[in-house]
Amino acid sequence: MKSHTKYLKIHTTKSREIINITRECESALAESGITEGMMLVSAMHITAAVWVNDNEPGIWQDAMQMLEELAPEGPDYRHHHTGEDNGHAHLKNILTHHQVILPITQGQFDFGPWQTVLYVEFDGRRDKRLIIKTIGD
Amino acid sequence: MKSHTKYLKIHTTKSREIINITRECESALAESGITEGMMLVSAMHITAAVWVNDNEPGIWQDAMQMLEELAPEGPDYRHHHTGEDNGHAHLKNILTHHQVILPITQGQFDFGPWQTVLYVEFDGRRDKRLIIKTIGD
Amino acid sequence: MKSHTKYLKIHTTKSREIINITRECESALAESGITEGMMLVSAMHITAAVWVNDNEPGIWQDAMQMLEELAPEGPDYRHHHTGEDNGHAHLKNILTHHQVILPITQGQFDFGPWQTVLYVEFDGRRDKRLIIKTIGD
Repeated sequence: MKSHTKYLKIHTTKSREIINITRECESALAESGITEGMMLVSAMHITAAVWVNDNEPGIWQDAMQMLEELAPEGPDYRHHHTGEDNGHAHLKNILTHHQVILPITQGQFDFGPWQTVLYVEFDGRRDKRLIIKTIGD
Repeated sequence: MKSHTKYLKIHTTKSREIINITRECESALAESGITEGMMLVSAMHITAAVWVNDNEPGIWQDAMQMLEELAPEGPDYRHHHTGEDNGHAHLKNILTHHQVILPITQGQFDFGPWQTVLYVEFDGRRDKRLIIKTIGD
Repeated sequence: MKSHTKYLKIHTTKSREIINITRECESALAESGITEGMMLVSAMHITAAVWVNDNEPGIWQDAMQMLEELAPEGPDYRHHHTGEDNGHAHLKNILTHHQVILPITQGQFDFGPWQTVLYVEFDGRRDKRLIIKTIGD
């Protein structure tokens, strides 16, 4: 079994931002030399998410608006008693999951139409990291 | 390490539908010959989900009703400016995740009581696909 | 490829409870002897979840409160026609996912700051199980 590990550094200019990282995942796959297996793409912070969805900014805004309604910024979350102000970002992370697994077949991602890999930042403007871990043959 | 890949074709008659695909996953496991490892079951479209939950239509309807409240069909989502009308289905996919990993131990799924594998369609009446990717020994 | 399987037995005293299980995952990792790979941590019941988030009880309460609003206990869910009363717990499981994958690099979990593994019980006061399955080299 082969394995390969890569880290992406991300520092968004806005507090909320969605970034298509499919190309970075493809680079990691090429570097790994793995042709059959699985790639884990996982946020290393608990205020960001990773989704597989459409490369279409309209649906990105729709999703961010829905999440703002379900877990709004601002309320006096108990988490803020620790001095933090990003409770909403934790909750959005919990609702939408922080990681995906990409299947690898014959050296390529085994995606359906429209599937792209998205990094979803809920509490940006600072250094964040993402791990891309590939295992297989 | 062994790997095995199988695709399911799904074409529901209704726009929303939940289908128990545990048997199809068991067939893929038998074909793979893998006795220790992990199976990824992942929708290849971004308007469907895969859950591990109860084979009980009452809770399926409860879940669909909750999701209709959280991400209702109909509103003029920004995504619809592209000509699409399925924004709600993307949002339901994002909220409930599009994939699961099934643990494989001694040639069987290492499930607890009541765990079954469900394909959850949010935008049906057309050809969809699902990937079942198994790795292990 | 090596694989290792461990089960945790959990029996909470309250119906809702969050338990930090990072240490138990570390023990499983040490037992496995695996230094590069992935660990699946997955609830074996469909009324519990596994999250990677902060070891901070304030945000745990915030998350439980949000989930109580999105999937409240009490309403006459269709699932209750089967004699059950835990429909809300199924829905919370569906919204927040029942499993995570932990990346393993150089014999350790490849976590960012603040990442811990949490078992999240939505319907406790009875015996539950969790599977920890590790594959790699």
